Amino acid sequence: MLKLYFSKGSSALAAHILLEEANAAYSTQEVSVPKGQHLSPEFVKLNPKGRVPALETPEGVISENPAILEYIAARHPEANLLPQGVFEQAKARSLCAYLCATTHVAFAHKQRGARWVDDADAVQAMQRRVPQNIAESAAYLETHVMDGAWALGAKYSFCDPYLFLVGRWMAACDLKLDPFPKLAAHHAAMRARPATMVALAAHGLA
Amino acid sequence: MLKLYFSKGSSALAAHILLEEANAAYSTQEVSVPKGQHLSPEFVKLNPKGRVPALETPEGVISENPAILEYIAARHPEANLLPQGVFEQAKARSLCAYLCATTHVAFAHKQRGARWVDDADAVQAMQRRVPQNIAESAAYLETHVMDGAWALGAKYSFCDPYLFLVGRWMAACDLKLDPFPKLAAHHAAMRARPATMVALAAHGLA
Repeated sequence: MLKLYFSKGSSALAAHILLEEANAAYSTQEVSVPKGQHLSPEFVKLNPKGRVPALETPEGVISENPAILEYIAARHPEANLLPQGVFEQAKARSLCAYLCATTHVAFAHKQRGARWVDDADAVQAMQRRVPQNIAESAAYLETHVMDGAWALGAKYSFCDPYLFLVGRWMAACDLKLDPFPKLAAHHAAMRARPATMVALAAHGLA
Repeated sequence: MLKLYFSKGSSALAAHILLEEANAAYSTQEVSVPKGQHLSPEFVKLNPKGRVPALETPEGVISENPAILEYIAARHPEANLLPQGVFEQAKARSLCAYLCATTHVAFAHKQRGARWVDDADAVQAMQRRVPQNIAESAAYLETHVMDGAWALGAKYSFCDPYLFLVGRWMAACDLKLDPFPKLAAHHAAMRARPATMVALAAHGLA
């Protein structure tokens, strides 16, 4: 039995979608970031980073989206969410690392600028740049990653729910997906999947 | 045959060390970031991100440290660099994601602030905060990750060369490892390994 700690609308949505795709036995517990629940002593004891998502497993707690997503895929082989082959898996991990350390970090400068600077002017300077960085990241994904219907090509994988977040980050920056037809088609295909619909509903986003 | 594209002193050092640990058949090509060679048309064609490290393999090019490091480990099973078991591997990936998206990103705000803001005052505001963020990251690693001689406990793994970079990032911020005895012991143990020495020498850091 797995337990996903999530905040509505956060990047925990990706793991939420994947748990549904995997038909996993799981429960959820909301840890509202807007309400500061991620900083509660109970949650920080569970995940000292004070971040969501966190996935409680019978063997311990896992944090960080790339690790959580691949764990869900590896634990549910019947769902075929893990690409086969060392190189294909390296491609998947490369994409997850990019989404984690470049795209998500770029987006975090919109609302979490205080992580990297102390003064308010610099926070605002960061915020002004975010749409450009997110659009550049989308252009990279459109041009150099997307080569088929799904993130890794012809087959849905554990990377797809993570890639789905890019469309949400763009919308939060008032950016349209239209200039990126492959990403737009991916986003629409993701939204049409029952697993995505269930997870979006749990986040109040249906 | 593998080929590592690296800039001296960059985070490509981790892959360089791991290739040595794996006793891999590999060659290297310097792509000097200070000289702007990472933006040359030849290199950008190879890695459209224009970043090092990049690892050329018979199947294609891999970018992003977490993906490169695990690929090297998976391709050289005789070197025992990949932890066994789904949960242990998730722990490894969680650590790599953290080093990639939190610690390395925190450090990048020192010299690469222009990635996230346009104006010079904000870049300086970022730079002022870097030592605090790197020290906080070191404290997290010391307290919540280190539980044995190596990054994952009792056994050396593909995560160790990546963790080794933390000591280098700290030194670049004029921070000492002394307040973090586990990280300090890890750094010393890494420096004593022949593989680390060979890679440091190739980076002009011996």
